[in-house]
Amino acid sequence: MSKCEKVQGVWILFVWVSTDHDEIAKVAKSWGAKVHRRSQKVSRDCSTSLETIQEFLEDNPEVMVVCNIQATSPCLHPFHLQEALKKITEDGFDSVFSVVRRHQFRWKEVKEGSSKSTQPENLDPWNRPRRQDWDGDLYENGSFYFATRDLIMNEGCLQVNSQPLTS
Amino acid sequence: MSKCEKVQGVWILFVWVSTDHDEIAKVAKSWGAKVHRRSQKVSRDCSTSLETIQEFLEDNPEVMVVCNIQATSPCLHPFHLQEALKKITEDGFDSVFSVVRRHQFRWKEVKEGSSKSTQPENLDPWNRPRRQDWDGDLYENGSFYFATRDLIMNEGCLQVNSQPLTS
Repeated sequence: MSKCEKVQGVWILFVWVSTDHDEIAKVAKSWGAKVHRRSQKVSRDCSTSLETIQEFLEDNPEVMVVCNIQATSPCLHPFHLQEALKKITEDGFDSVFSVVRRHQFRWKEVKEGSSKSTQPENLDPWNRPRRQDWDGDLYENGSFYFATRDLIMNEGCLQVNSQPLTS
Repeated sequence: MSKCEKVQGVWILFVWVSTDHDEIAKVAKSWGAKVHRRSQKVSRDCSTSLETIQEFLEDNPEVMVVCNIQATSPCLHPFHLQEALKKITEDGFDSVFSVVRRHQFRWKEVKEGSSKSTQPENLDPWNRPRRQDWDGDLYENGSFYFATRDLIMNEGCLQVNSQPLTS
């Protein structure tokens, strides 16, 4: 997680690693990150990112904006984060997250063994659009999720009044 | 394209290659495929698969079912085609095509520079489902498209009264 604080009118970026593991904490510190020692309560198999981030914000009341980045999306560039953060600090959004544009035709599910027919959900089978004639759909790619303290603590959510950023 | 004919009550499978190119026709024959020499009219940059298949069916009135398979999906196994064909010959569907199950969160597009917020299309941001608790959506993967002569020639379509097969 990277976390932003506003200090005397200036946004300051800190990189934090949230973990309950000594070795991970040690490596994180050796690379210059701050460490949030997460509690047992938010370190379970079923713990959500949201719960962990809420605990972090309780422990660090000076942090105003959080960006949750994920190790499973290594192709993240600094400019992605800079552009996204600007949407919050300058454009007034409460959250910003990364999406990709995909051109995929979607159909309604028909249960195994059913004699029902499927129905198209985002195409006209009589006029199938060519890829170049269709904008496609936007899908989360899990790369980053920015949200304000207010949204996370008061709404209990990472994605409201949100803008998607195609990366 | 592989094409099926019903001969004396039995479904017979033939593999055809549709091309306007001498070398491709030669290689196809050397591997045991039949060749449909497609006309200039359906060999243009903007020609659709449907137009090409309709021309093929005009030239080959004995063919009752067509399966269009695509070179861009090489991981196709014979049992996929056998299972799909059975849906037509035994279960009464007019078309069957391959899909994949994907777990992707979709959001409404907001135009560049807009101050509008996006909206979720297939999730509740306050209760984001875990992958294992959600069936996901079905998307065409382009591997194969089966359709009957009637559907292709009379409806001008490859996907009506259809069943998706997860491959």
